[in-house]
Amino acid sequence: MVSIAEDARWMRLALALGRRGQGRCWPNPAVGCVIVKQGRVLGRGWTQPGGRPHAEVVALAQAGDAAHGATAYVSLEPCNHYGQTPPCSEALVAASVARVVIAATDPDPRTDGGGAARLRAAGIAVETGLLEDEAARDHRGFFSKLRAGRPALTLKLAASLDGRIATATGESQWITGPEARRWVHGQRARHDAVMVGAGTARADDPSLTVRGLGIAHQPVRVVLSRRLDIPVDSHLGRTAREVPVWLCHGADAPETARALWRDAGARLIEVATGPGGQLDLSAAMVALGGAGLTRVFCEGGGSLAAGLIAGDLVDDLAVVSAGLTLGAEGTPAVGAMGVAALSEATRFRLVETRDLGGDALSLWVREAG
Amino acid sequence: MVSIAEDARWMRLALALGRRGQGRCWPNPAVGCVIVKQGRVLGRGWTQPGGRPHAEVVALAQAGDAAHGATAYVSLEPCNHYGQTPPCSEALVAASVARVVIAATDPDPRTDGGGAARLRAAGIAVETGLLEDEAARDHRGFFSKLRAGRPALTLKLAASLDGRIATATGESQWITGPEARRWVHGQRARHDAVMVGAGTARADDPSLTVRGLGIAHQPVRVVLSRRLDIPVDSHLGRTAREVPVWLCHGADAPETARALWRDAGARLIEVATGPGGQLDLSAAMVALGGAGLTRVFCEGGGSLAAGLIAGDLVDDLAVVSAGLTLGAEGTPAVGAMGVAALSEATRFRLVETRDLGGDALSLWVREAG
Repeated sequence: MVSIAEDARWMRLALALGRRGQGRCWPNPAVGCVIVKQGRVLGRGWTQPGGRPHAEVVALAQAGDAAHGATAYVSLEPCNHYGQTPPCSEALVAASVARVVIAATDPDPRTDGGGAARLRAAGIAVETGLLEDEAARDHRGFFSKLRAGRPALTLKLAASLDGRIATATGESQWITGPEARRWVHGQRARHDAVMVGAGTARADDPSLTVRGLGIAHQPVRVVLSRRLDIPVDSHLGRTAREVPVWLCHGADAPETARALWRDAGARLIEVATGPGGQLDLSAAMVALGGAGLTRVFCEGGGSLAAGLIAGDLVDDLAVVSAGLTLGAEGTPAVGAMGVAALSEATRFRLVETRDLGGDALSLWVREAG
Repeated sequence: MVSIAEDARWMRLALALGRRGQGRCWPNPAVGCVIVKQGRVLGRGWTQPGGRPHAEVVALAQAGDAAHGATAYVSLEPCNHYGQTPPCSEALVAASVARVVIAATDPDPRTDGGGAARLRAAGIAVETGLLEDEAARDHRGFFSKLRAGRPALTLKLAASLDGRIATATGESQWITGPEARRWVHGQRARHDAVMVGAGTARADDPSLTVRGLGIAHQPVRVVLSRRLDIPVDSHLGRTAREVPVWLCHGADAPETARALWRDAGARLIEVATGPGGQLDLSAAMVALGGAGLTRVFCEGGGSLAAGLIAGDLVDDLAVVSAGLTLGAEGTPAVGAMGVAALSEATRFRLVETRDLGGDALSLWVREAG
């Protein structure tokens, strides 16, 4: 018999492997799998770029015939439907594994317990729920898309100690230090898309790519701009054929701007507008989910940050605070929110605090509620 | 022979004991002393409330005759002048200790190496500089007063993640949680005085006392108010005879207000005003140093915080961030500072980050420069 502690150790490995696929395998979940027999790892796999092969298939291929009688640890219930590949449940049955340990059940209606049932029907011992909370966190983007139709959203606020992202004269480079900026690039790489508002796109002319980490894969770059009033002759416009640029705009975006951006290679996504004429952020997020994104990393600016928090669309909040204050004339990291009473404000739960090369990082998740 | 590791262990104990006196022994430094012989502690002492007896005298009294041939560990060089008590250097000589290990030299011109010299002249082995940086940090208030004429200043910013201390409607209770507020009370107790600006005194009607910690000793309560326009019928006014209230005001404070506050039991300290008519904060801090304070804990509000940072008067910055955002309409934790370029902003060095009951605490010290 294998102890729970040993099971948990292998599942932790499967979870860690699964995270390697984050940002690269959307619209599919980033799953990890380990095949173990008598304390030896026979195969390790994670969902490959683009979403296939799946983790189980990769791990089983490594294990070969040795998988017979082994235990498979998977961070998400094996799929049970014929898509572009046969279901993983079938591959595990064919490999004659003796036992499958599953962290989280797959809420995809095409699976949703069916994968585990098929394994059991084939005489395989199946256990579910080991490290389920960790797995649910890792798969939160995939789950959010299934349940709410929108990707999981991480909002980054990188600001001075008094919550300012630029001086009164607009100077913002650099408030945080090189290690914090490297951390941001790492976060970009682990998300399917990086998102900013039109004001930030205009003011900073950002490239929003992952640089300096030896990573070739790039996230989709999303800009929310109701009227598409961002110069095409920008970093984003000039590189839209190399790294995807998606523009969420309103119905009133001029046709000339649409044509310019379409010609530059951008994907245009029309989104409903709210009563104040601004883009409906909830609709924008659902549109991004519909386009396949599971994990979005928003880097501001202040108006978009305020709208996302006020709209209760932020799942994770990453705050990087630099050791200086810029005073009330500086640009606020979070714009007007219309919060009158403290009880109205969305509360976030602290997960971690850390020194990030001299800047203070704090990670927060939305309070379940 | 005693190893350096063992010496450091005893010195750490002496430093910890010394900190017990912080906030209670001003204008004297909060010193700790341990008397050790053959690995056994014979006496432990720290500067007593009001500043005497000194740590060495307390520790020697505990050790009695056993101090003969022992080692004394002191966090600050023993004093060498006759004040209200004979010098500690003499007491150590009289007790026939064999060795004295000193963390930091006392820059007080009446001692400044003289204490160590007198011990050496009596044939006692003297070593200085063990854990000197830690000791300098513990004694930073005393050192600041000697060198710059002003107390060390800790500024606390307790705010939302976007640096707001109240909603647009002025609601501020409570942004941070109970553990953070308890921590603030602990900090008050370890400082000689708690300081706020007139706006905070008017808006919050605070009592600024230490509560809920079983501590009877209270810090001085300092309010900066150029025109003394704070109601005497406030918590501070009503309790000024129980716990000291010091008011720093300008030359133009009306005589009626002065008389009211004097009658209420407050101490009035007239301070020069700057070119804009506001109180000269540097002059105010020097006045507080002249009145004996070594450690001041400032709790805002935003204008005072901004002025103190802009005036380069903040030695330590304690930021407590609560897991919510209040948006740009909220009251800023740091008011207008007049910082145009990032290079002008005072940088602080991160010392620690910590979860404080669900709020994120980050501690910063001014960059040496």
